[in-house]
Amino acid sequence: MARKSFDDTACPVARSLDKVGDGWSLLILRDAYHGLARFDQFEASLGIASNILSNRLGRLVEEGFLERQRYNDRPPRYEYHLTRRGHDFRPVLIALSAFGDAQYGEAGRTTCLVDVETGEAIDPVLTDRRSGAVIETLKLAPRIRPLADEPQGSI
Amino acid sequence: MARKSFDDTACPVARSLDKVGDGWSLLILRDAYHGLARFDQFEASLGIASNILSNRLGRLVEEGFLERQRYNDRPPRYEYHLTRRGHDFRPVLIALSAFGDAQYGEAGRTTCLVDVETGEAIDPVLTDRRSGAVIETLKLAPRIRPLADEPQGSI
Repeated sequence: MARKSFDDTACPVARSLDKVGDGWSLLILRDAYHGLARFDQFEASLGIASNILSNRLGRLVEEGFLERQRYNDRPPRYEYHLTRRGHDFRPVLIALSAFGDAQYGEAGRTTCLVDVETGEAIDPVLTDRRSGAVIETLKLAPRIRPLADEPQGSI
Repeated sequence: MARKSFDDTACPVARSLDKVGDGWSLLILRDAYHGLARFDQFEASLGIASNILSNRLGRLVEEGFLERQRYNDRPPRYEYHLTRRGHDFRPVLIALSAFGDAQYGEAGRTTCLVDVETGEAIDPVLTDRRSGAVIETLKLAPRIRPLADEPQGSI
């Protein structure tokens, strides 16, 4: 990505890209959602050079998506666990996974996500939490988010 | 992104990143969803160098997210319109936008998406199309997608 900072805009897409706008970072998060936590687990899963992995893990910690937890003292070794922010990012990767499965998937050559409880593949669709409407059926426009109302009953 | 090809895996996230794993490409798609179509419109919106814009538009055409349509003959000028694949990618950007608004938004300094019909801001949540379950409440695991059944009644 060319390095104009995307953070300096009102657009939440641009601001998010500034934090994790990198393929490796997204694949590290994908693996974290699947339970991987240790450096050598990510390294084996991704086939990534260790210096790049180290850099991306550091960036994800710095941006608050992962947190480091020491699991061995001598030598010092760390696990990387998802924070609340890291968990909150998961719908983006699920949407990306559903798109990739639909567009580039061939049976037997792609993974889908299954509900562990039922064993059924999920079919993710974005809906509006309030109205329940399927968002792809709506006509949308961006708008600057207005200032929040004063909280009622504040002293 | 370090150039190992992400396309050579069973993972639909990795394959999708190989196509549009780039901040500028995602911001061009964002603008296309908001109705922009011409080179100079994207250039003015993004503040992007024209050679980079030209490269990313070409890539998005090549990968089937946008298609070129000539709107002027002398000199030749083109508009870039979303294909079906481009439209199908939109939920990824909506999920990214909702995440960015929640994590990095401040009132008056972030945009949200509103339903043009009602004027209400949408609050996107991923649900399972079949069961209606909110996906963030499910425990998920990846699985290689099995071969489709033989179509019944085939000759």
